[in-house]
Amino acid sequence: MATNVVVLGAGLIGRTIVADLAAEPTLHVTVLDASPEALTRLPDSPHVKAQLADLRAPDGLEAAVAAAELAICAVPGFMGFEVLRRVIGAGRDVVDTSFFPEDAFALDALAREKGVTAVVDCGVAPGLCNLLAGRAAAELDSLTRYRCYVGGLPRERRWPYEYGAVFSPGDVIEEYTRPARLREGGRELVRPALSGLEQLDLPGVGTLEAFTTDGLRSLLTTLDAPDMIEKTLRYPGHAELMRVFRESGFFDQQPLELGGARVSPRELTSHLLFAQWRLAEGEADLTVMRVEIGGLRGGAVRSYRFDLLDRYDAATKTTSMARTTGYTCTMAARQLLAGRFTRKGVCPPSSWVAIRHVSTPSWPVSRRAVCTSRRP
Amino acid sequence: MATNVVVLGAGLIGRTIVADLAAEPTLHVTVLDASPEALTRLPDSPHVKAQLADLRAPDGLEAAVAAAELAICAVPGFMGFEVLRRVIGAGRDVVDTSFFPEDAFALDALAREKGVTAVVDCGVAPGLCNLLAGRAAAELDSLTRYRCYVGGLPRERRWPYEYGAVFSPGDVIEEYTRPARLREGGRELVRPALSGLEQLDLPGVGTLEAFTTDGLRSLLTTLDAPDMIEKTLRYPGHAELMRVFRESGFFDQQPLELGGARVSPRELTSHLLFAQWRLAEGEADLTVMRVEIGGLRGGAVRSYRFDLLDRYDAATKTTSMARTTGYTCTMAARQLLAGRFTRKGVCPPSSWVAIRHVSTPSWPVSRRAVCTSRRP
Repeated sequence: MATNVVVLGAGLIGRTIVADLAAEPTLHVTVLDASPEALTRLPDSPHVKAQLADLRAPDGLEAAVAAAELAICAVPGFMGFEVLRRVIGAGRDVVDTSFFPEDAFALDALAREKGVTAVVDCGVAPGLCNLLAGRAAAELDSLTRYRCYVGGLPRERRWPYEYGAVFSPGDVIEEYTRPARLREGGRELVRPALSGLEQLDLPGVGTLEAFTTDGLRSLLTTLDAPDMIEKTLRYPGHAELMRVFRESGFFDQQPLELGGARVSPRELTSHLLFAQWRLAEGEADLTVMRVEIGGLRGGAVRSYRFDLLDRYDAATKTTSMARTTGYTCTMAARQLLAGRFTRKGVCPPSSWVAIRHVSTPSWPVSRRAVCTSRRP
Repeated sequence: MATNVVVLGAGLIGRTIVADLAAEPTLHVTVLDASPEALTRLPDSPHVKAQLADLRAPDGLEAAVAAAELAICAVPGFMGFEVLRRVIGAGRDVVDTSFFPEDAFALDALAREKGVTAVVDCGVAPGLCNLLAGRAAAELDSLTRYRCYVGGLPRERRWPYEYGAVFSPGDVIEEYTRPARLREGGRELVRPALSGLEQLDLPGVGTLEAFTTDGLRSLLTTLDAPDMIEKTLRYPGHAELMRVFRESGFFDQQPLELGGARVSPRELTSHLLFAQWRLAEGEADLTVMRVEIGGLRGGAVRSYRFDLLDRYDAATKTTSMARTTGYTCTMAARQLLAGRFTRKGVCPPSSWVAIRHVSTPSWPVSRRAVCTSRRP
């Protein structure tokens, strides 16, 4: 008997999620998107049904969700919170990859009332890194530190930026401007974006630079470690250029009066930089992540390091960013469909595996992702 | 008996010219400018008379010029050509420091008809470097090469640009975009601006970078050497940043449509960069120039190198750029007033000293300028 899953959004990430789920003979996948063009790029499978629908219009979404056992949200961040609220309101379990700015816990009461499991922030970072943190936390009596280095990069380095935007370019500039929250010696601190620059030599990639970004999000609430930081990875030199732009006012949003017109420097800068950062059709990217976790167990110091290096899949033209985001999501979806996680309410990935009696999820290692854990 | 000189323009350069001439007991200097504020910054001397006048309005300029024996033009480039034309039309000898885009030789016939000597391009570069080239050419039978490195820099290097605009900022961006004309093996070539990057170690300054710019101008006509190039000097790293801006479209002048408004990227970029490049009141600058000239005399190879390192004068708050530009001009003015140069027509500095029977001008070495010539 087939199980129905609805995927909301057929973009870069949604399409990858659909292709992965369609490989399961027991699943029927319905995909909703407002773009006919996006729907034509879905895999050609008897298990997949494309449905043209404006997810911001009333009713269409609710009907499709009601007909499914599980919903997956893969919509742009700006509309993510509202779509998630409506899915929860329709009473269906949901896994969400959308990077929306609102606080997901604001929907916790509604999810509990509806008896819904809502796994949020379920991409690569946030997402996979939180899962790894939760996994380590489940094995430790207490945590001392959490450190995550993560970046999506083009395989070929082209002067001067050596960068390709594998997700919303507007969110990329946000990473370079939004002050970063972190924890140090038990105290929460706010540091400027692009600060704390250091270099790392990563096997298979070479030397990258890392700088503090505001990516801890829900981990600051769910993970009890006195030292916590997230840093973004780029090829060396990128942060310096971004600092030049930021410190010279090119990322300012406040419009300037210029020759009678009002111009937002960031709007013009985005326009020009995104033209430089666009990945070409079929251009290979890679995703790098290192998560380091330290703590105590039975009075002894323990430390974990997880290294991820994932590459573009030329056969299916799937970017590494879509793979690492999408497969984290489908892995969570499989666990929910298998009844292996039944907690109700809003559940970020860290809370999910930190509960000891939940079985360890199986990693998507079969898809060339390298994910190793070292325990000295 | 006093000699009357009129100085057109009381800006940074004009003011410095006036202060230098006012030190001569035999000169009476009348200064015209449209800005009352600029006129208040002139030296307080019985030899100096300030006169409020719009140099673009008819008559005022002609009357003042007619009452003087010599005129000096120190106006912004955009109005330079027209002011020079009117001075020549009024029948007075003139020394011009304005960096106007038009071809000065277009006024040669008028100058000859009026019996006027018009020394043009008489600043530091163009100007002093042409004079040095002409001086060397006068001692050689033939020239093999001419190479000029020149730059105005702030004394203190501040991240990220390590630059301060000591002249019109618009002209600075032109240096980074306008293709550069040069001569190589006897052929005239055009190279992109910011190309030909090399590093030089200059005593008293340290390592600077040099890149090709379009500064040869009239020298390509007046100097007969098969290899000729001008390069601009900056602290290392500046050219790379300027290439980033240029190659990403930030120096494009063609307006873009952005949110309903039409925006010229260069206009916005100029606005933001000039705020970064502004020299603070009293901030020290320096001027560096190296001119290398090679040739043959009596069948033997000869080479010359002239090094200039000039610094801000804190006592008189005179920038080095104003000193090296202004004193080249006043030195030429003194030669004309002394009757040591009588050729009529438009005369760039190189043609001036290349005539052997003209006496060598005295260098302004008394003002801490270091100007040495080495002849192996």
